[in-house]
Amino acid sequence: MAKQVENAIQDVYPDDFSWCYGCGRLNKEGHHFRTGWDGDQTVTIYTPRPEHTAVPGFVYGGLTASLIDCHGTGSAALALHRKNGHEPDDDAEAPRFVTASLEVKFLKPTPQDVPLKAIGEVEEIHPKKFKVHTEVYAGDVLCSKGEVVAALMPESFGK
Amino acid sequence: MAKQVENAIQDVYPDDFSWCYGCGRLNKEGHHFRTGWDGDQTVTIYTPRPEHTAVPGFVYGGLTASLIDCHGTGSAALALHRKNGHEPDDDAEAPRFVTASLEVKFLKPTPQDVPLKAIGEVEEIHPKKFKVHTEVYAGDVLCSKGEVVAALMPESFGK
Repeated sequence: MAKQVENAIQDVYPDDFSWCYGCGRLNKEGHHFRTGWDGDQTVTIYTPRPEHTAVPGFVYGGLTASLIDCHGTGSAALALHRKNGHEPDDDAEAPRFVTASLEVKFLKPTPQDVPLKAIGEVEEIHPKKFKVHTEVYAGDVLCSKGEVVAALMPESFGK
Repeated sequence: MAKQVENAIQDVYPDDFSWCYGCGRLNKEGHHFRTGWDGDQTVTIYTPRPEHTAVPGFVYGGLTASLIDCHGTGSAALALHRKNGHEPDDDAEAPRFVTASLEVKFLKPTPQDVPLKAIGEVEEIHPKKFKVHTEVYAGDVLCSKGEVVAALMPESFGK
């Protein structure tokens, strides 16, 4: 199992769409989530900051939700990019997805000071829409499960 | 409609459970979401920071999810506190809830630089469990809908 993500889809998002607080490489204040392939699964690894607490010792659920969210859009982008014949380590710009819906089930309190690993399976539900099933582990412990429906960002987005 | 929340349930959470990155009054780095009654509805008002962006001009979905999450646990705490005969402006410590599940539907891009208002309806589904139905508005525009199942924090939580 990967210990870090070497080739992340976020490295090849177009500059204009790389400002996301969760995963944008250009957002100086953000989390800089990085999502890549690990075989046929997708993976994002992140160690929450000390302030990302729910109660002392345990991770804030909103951070887990954020991780699942960006892992979902990143996984959808990875899948469509691969379908288009590309991998994150070639020069092509990746497609950018937006979240249509997000579901998180919190199964166990998530311990702090442990790297979290989001592992995703991507399901195509429409040529421009993917469902990403994600499990979030702290070490070997499955702490949360999530589901994101990610839709290809419309060209009109934000206009 | 309230422009700010005067008496927030987070003001009367026990100190040990006031460190949440989303809504803990003692977390110096956090969002300090504050949730109160507005008639029979619950309300949380928050203006995202400039870095909380998805793409420039629009709010990060993970921030919306975080708002809905803490608004949900806060609303459940308000409801049980009222059932126990208390309001946030009396001296009693409020009960503390944890999120069992969180669902968010992103309906429209959420514009930045506008106060967001989460408005909730609380449904008791078990004496220790509440479902909170939330709508998030930016000005008059309904941008997201959410549902949180919040469970009374077990005494063993985090032990």
